[in-house]
Amino acid sequence: MSDLEVIEFRPERDQYAWTFGGAAPVATVRPPAVLEVFTEDAFFGRVRSETDLVSQVCEFPFVNPQTGPFYIEGAEPGDTVAVHFVSITPARDWGASTTIPLFGSLTGTHLTALLNEPLPELVWLWHFDQAAQTCRFTPRHGDFTVDMPMNPMHGTVGVAPASLEVRSALVPDAFGGNMDTPEMRAGTTCYLGVNVEGALLSLGDGHARQGEGETCGVAVETAMNTVLIVDLIKGTPCPWPRLETDDYIMTAGSARPLEDAFRIAQTDLIQWLAGHYGMDVMDAYQLVSQGVEAPLANVVDVNYTSIAKMPKRYLPSAPVMDGTHARLRESARAKS
Amino acid sequence: MSDLEVIEFRPERDQYAWTFGGAAPVATVRPPAVLEVFTEDAFFGRVRSETDLVSQVCEFPFVNPQTGPFYIEGAEPGDTVAVHFVSITPARDWGASTTIPLFGSLTGTHLTALLNEPLPELVWLWHFDQAAQTCRFTPRHGDFTVDMPMNPMHGTVGVAPASLEVRSALVPDAFGGNMDTPEMRAGTTCYLGVNVEGALLSLGDGHARQGEGETCGVAVETAMNTVLIVDLIKGTPCPWPRLETDDYIMTAGSARPLEDAFRIAQTDLIQWLAGHYGMDVMDAYQLVSQGVEAPLANVVDVNYTSIAKMPKRYLPSAPVMDGTHARLRESARAKS
Amino acid sequence: MSDLEVIEFRPERDQYAWTFGGAAPVATVRPPAVLEVFTEDAFFGRVRSETDLVSQVCEFPFVNPQTGPFYIEGAEPGDTVAVHFVSITPARDWGASTTIPLFGSLTGTHLTALLNEPLPELVWLWHFDQAAQTCRFTPRHGDFTVDMPMNPMHGTVGVAPASLEVRSALVPDAFGGNMDTPEMRAGTTCYLGVNVEGALLSLGDGHARQGEGETCGVAVETAMNTVLIVDLIKGTPCPWPRLETDDYIMTAGSARPLEDAFRIAQTDLIQWLAGHYGMDVMDAYQLVSQGVEAPLANVVDVNYTSIAKMPKRYLPSAPVMDGTHARLRESARAKS
Amino acid sequence: MSDLEVIEFRPERDQYAWTFGGAAPVATVRPPAVLEVFTEDAFFGRVRSETDLVSQVCEFPFVNPQTGPFYIEGAEPGDTVAVHFVSITPARDWGASTTIPLFGSLTGTHLTALLNEPLPELVWLWHFDQAAQTCRFTPRHGDFTVDMPMNPMHGTVGVAPASLEVRSALVPDAFGGNMDTPEMRAGTTCYLGVNVEGALLSLGDGHARQGEGETCGVAVETAMNTVLIVDLIKGTPCPWPRLETDDYIMTAGSARPLEDAFRIAQTDLIQWLAGHYGMDVMDAYQLVSQGVEAPLANVVDVNYTSIAKMPKRYLPSAPVMDGTHARLRESARAKS
Repeated sequence: MSDLEVIEFRPERDQYAWTFGGAAPVATVRPPAVLEVFTEDAFFGRVRSETDLVSQVCEFPFVNPQTGPFYIEGAEPGDTVAVHFVSITPARDWGASTTIPLFGSLTGTHLTALLNEPLPELVWLWHFDQAAQTCRFTPRHGDFTVDMPMNPMHGTVGVAPASLEVRSALVPDAFGGNMDTPEMRAGTTCYLGVNVEGALLSLGDGHARQGEGETCGVAVETAMNTVLIVDLIKGTPCPWPRLETDDYIMTAGSARPLEDAFRIAQTDLIQWLAGHYGMDVMDAYQLVSQGVEAPLANVVDVNYTSIAKMPKRYLPSAPVMDGTHARLRESARAKS
Repeated sequence: MSDLEVIEFRPERDQYAWTFGGAAPVATVRPPAVLEVFTEDAFFGRVRSETDLVSQVCEFPFVNPQTGPFYIEGAEPGDTVAVHFVSITPARDWGASTTIPLFGSLTGTHLTALLNEPLPELVWLWHFDQAAQTCRFTPRHGDFTVDMPMNPMHGTVGVAPASLEVRSALVPDAFGGNMDTPEMRAGTTCYLGVNVEGALLSLGDGHARQGEGETCGVAVETAMNTVLIVDLIKGTPCPWPRLETDDYIMTAGSARPLEDAFRIAQTDLIQWLAGHYGMDVMDAYQLVSQGVEAPLANVVDVNYTSIAKMPKRYLPSAPVMDGTHARLRESARAKS
Repeated sequence: MSDLEVIEFRPERDQYAWTFGGAAPVATVRPPAVLEVFTEDAFFGRVRSETDLVSQVCEFPFVNPQTGPFYIEGAEPGDTVAVHFVSITPARDWGASTTIPLFGSLTGTHLTALLNEPLPELVWLWHFDQAAQTCRFTPRHGDFTVDMPMNPMHGTVGVAPASLEVRSALVPDAFGGNMDTPEMRAGTTCYLGVNVEGALLSLGDGHARQGEGETCGVAVETAMNTVLIVDLIKGTPCPWPRLETDDYIMTAGSARPLEDAFRIAQTDLIQWLAGHYGMDVMDAYQLVSQGVEAPLANVVDVNYTSIAKMPKRYLPSAPVMDGTHARLRESARAKS
Repeated sequence: MSDLEVIEFRPERDQYAWTFGGAAPVATVRPPAVLEVFTEDAFFGRVRSETDLVSQVCEFPFVNPQTGPFYIEGAEPGDTVAVHFVSITPARDWGASTTIPLFGSLTGTHLTALLNEPLPELVWLWHFDQAAQTCRFTPRHGDFTVDMPMNPMHGTVGVAPASLEVRSALVPDAFGGNMDTPEMRAGTTCYLGVNVEGALLSLGDGHARQGEGETCGVAVETAMNTVLIVDLIKGTPCPWPRLETDDYIMTAGSARPLEDAFRIAQTDLIQWLAGHYGMDVMDAYQLVSQGVEAPLANVVDVNYTSIAKMPKRYLPSAPVMDGTHARLRESARAKS
């Protein structure tokens, strides 16, 4: 990786983006290149104690700040941007989680509009042990505590949307965005179809860890120091976000109701097998039906996100996405 | 209405907007004022015969052109814009309806992603009898024809969204937009909460008529000459689009799944009764449960739209929204 | 109607059915025949004052008592039972509506399982003016009252389900059941496909009136004296409930999410036009898209119910369902 | 386990049950007791080659045959039946999977009623290598094959429903039934709340393996020889199915839309933590939000099923469900 350009970027407070699309690029990237960035937490760093209630300290719509966007040189509609996460490291030794009125999967919300009283608004601070790579849950009532493994991840990574749109950083969709999947961890390559010239890539919303589905709507939110490699795959489109690790290929569908998110992810996985692996569509349907893993990502955001995760060992060997994951993986290893 | 300023605006081909938010205003309106506008059809006028297939003649995302946006002087977040439709008149003597691949409520779509083959792509031309105020259905097969009453309406009327967003003209949401409700006809006042300075009001998507739900995704699309009065209600917010006629108050919820659109509309109606009519929330819940009409608007767009429609004769008398509907209705009568 | 057999049936307290299917017939009907029946209200008559809370006075699952089932002589799977409502008359001069914990469209429920506190449990008594055909809303707080027109209807009418199932009287599905549509009023003929020998028809759940969607989950519940004519259409199946009046044909889809209920009703309407009216399916799709009315029935029950309602004046003339509605309508007129 | 009564039951062809509830018990079990049973595959053994299409060889509703029901002595409403799977062994050296018209998650269905043509109806035979514990995928087109690990499981295990209902063996709900989760494997204890005297437990629908979500609607279906231990927990209710292994507690929610299945499972998990582990509800909400795994079970059945899976190592130690899993686990070990 010594031969790759390295761009460091730590935004000033007034340099964050709050949308996918619609923000001016903070830097230009000539792919492949390494980005070393800082991302602020989803609260813009404003929840620091149990008395910092989101409804009081945050100022909507200025939540979920994005680092970026980065203009990817040469990226045009019909291409795919590849983002390989080399490392994602909490920049603080604590994170915060909260409930937020009218947000979360187990309460009425602005969209699931009900007459019930909202749930209590609460904050939980989680303390990290970087050596042990754990984070500690401390309840608001009672004295049971537990250390869970950290699994640092980015809730958001996305490009500018299609159709001339600008979307809030809280939205996951075909352009990526706020997918909130624990699969977006170090070692993962994320593929995103390019909708506008330069792609306009940004990322943020670091989570020290998160359950599948992000039940209460908020993970263990923290700032991150993240190293990623950005590459460009010319002439290969990517209709919905696709992920790749050494062991899996994955697709991410985002929609409501949740079964549509599932359908998108499963259909895109099958189309991937048909398109890049040369399988018959109906055979791919059968293979996926018996082999797929289907962990939920979020059931709380503007769109819900469902992951379809296929072990590579069940698939024919194929140099999908131009072998980009293997190449970036190699670059990452070379660096460390 | 002689004392109201009248603004005429017929866009040039390159003057249409394709989004809510994100487009520069075409004119400034000092409310109350009359707008006399031309709106092009949702196909940008490109479907003119049975051989003009949408997938071939339209150029995405340049569909559903909006006339506007108009900058409403004095409009600020927290205010409400009132749009009273004085007349909506087809500007041609025919309209077009179509099927579109992967669009409509009875087919797999980009979001309800399936493996089935798409439906056939077809065009139906509807011919209007302006004197009789009817439009004629002619099937593609067989010789049964029928004249249905025209019910000219606008599928879209909206303002710029909140949260720094820019949305495609195909989207209905809290900012209004592509709600596709037959209730948006002459005689109706539509209230829209202001999200940005100047509100940025636009409208389009004229339908000579449309069934409730817009089953195949496309109404009898036609260009319109429309007269509307625009007014501003300072200091009164409007969380979701509200409509008023001489006989009804209505709310429009847009979301997926469809039950959430229903919940939004019903909850907003109840909150309206509690807020402006002084009813207890649970009493309003009961009154609405027995008195409401619930026609669907669309079950095909990015969000589905459900209407909650309450006869005024079931309600206490109250000068809701500052009595704006009655006042604009009077202005409209004065004009004609 | 003088030539039709008349069966009167007023159940004893221990003669009601609580399910569709699974109950022994209370009488045999040789179609066509007239049934004159009494139906108890959905609370089994136990909510009689504002202090009679459902959770205290009702004994689950003994709610929504059904009058029947009636064994229809000659009915076999593949046939259709026709039920024409001649008159539906409240048997009391009052009705009751309530909220019920974890039930209704604007609250968390057993299925939309949330952590919020339930809504307050309340009762509203509605008093009827039979001469004026109105029912009076009296709020729990405040002194606004209003008289609404009565629209007596049956929330439930159904036959035994297919697939060896027995379903609670609270369920609407392909067998009919608890559809809760205001369209089930005097003058309507309801068609139900037969699933088991004798069909096992029952009905109940009288409503003095109900809003579309039945928002809080409970209409103005009352006992009814109802006259209906039952007929049998041999060799004609009916996949989902279909309704007919002098002016409309209608279909009723019941499912979750609500868009699936809509899809069922719309698809069945189109198939009806294709099957009985000889239209091309795509032409029927277009005609329905522009002509249909889509009032919601309920958005609260185990399945939600959506109605597709097509004016007959938009359709070719066709003797659908063997001209049964016209024939039963004539019999009804002959009687009165 | 030598001291437990062992009941062997291999049904004759006419002894299977096709419903949960409504069938006479085939045997009485005095808990705790061991059951050694044979279950036929979901096709009733009728799909044996690639030319055996389900629509031709199966006879609805006689699909998904259940072994049972077993009358559990002493079981009353308010109790919980525990079913511990000791071993689940394919009784044949092959299994079959298929597509079925109007069934599966990536096609229009009877409920997601569309106008598209159905997908092709196909059969795939999977051959097992019992020594290697693998099953072989052979495509219909092309020559790629792959061996996947077997993960023998039961798609269905359930008791009679509440509310006087009888449900098809294809239905998953609060009574268990056709949940189709790969978690129902050897080593798992499944808890089911009792709704009727004797509980009426049955099981079937063996799968050699299944992907999460069961995308095409059909797993690798095969007959099974299964050993289970049945126990009864008096006076402890279980509102939705709960599962326990050495490492996890799990809940299974079944509903439509899929987000409601998710909500049920997550809420029940939280209530479990509050009820049996003594946690504050809001603290449990937070702990689950960060710790839960959320694999989908099925997105194809009458209700969809979502699993909430919590590692025991994140929880306080608590003798949940009277320590039944540990005790049955011990009995199972003693046997082998």
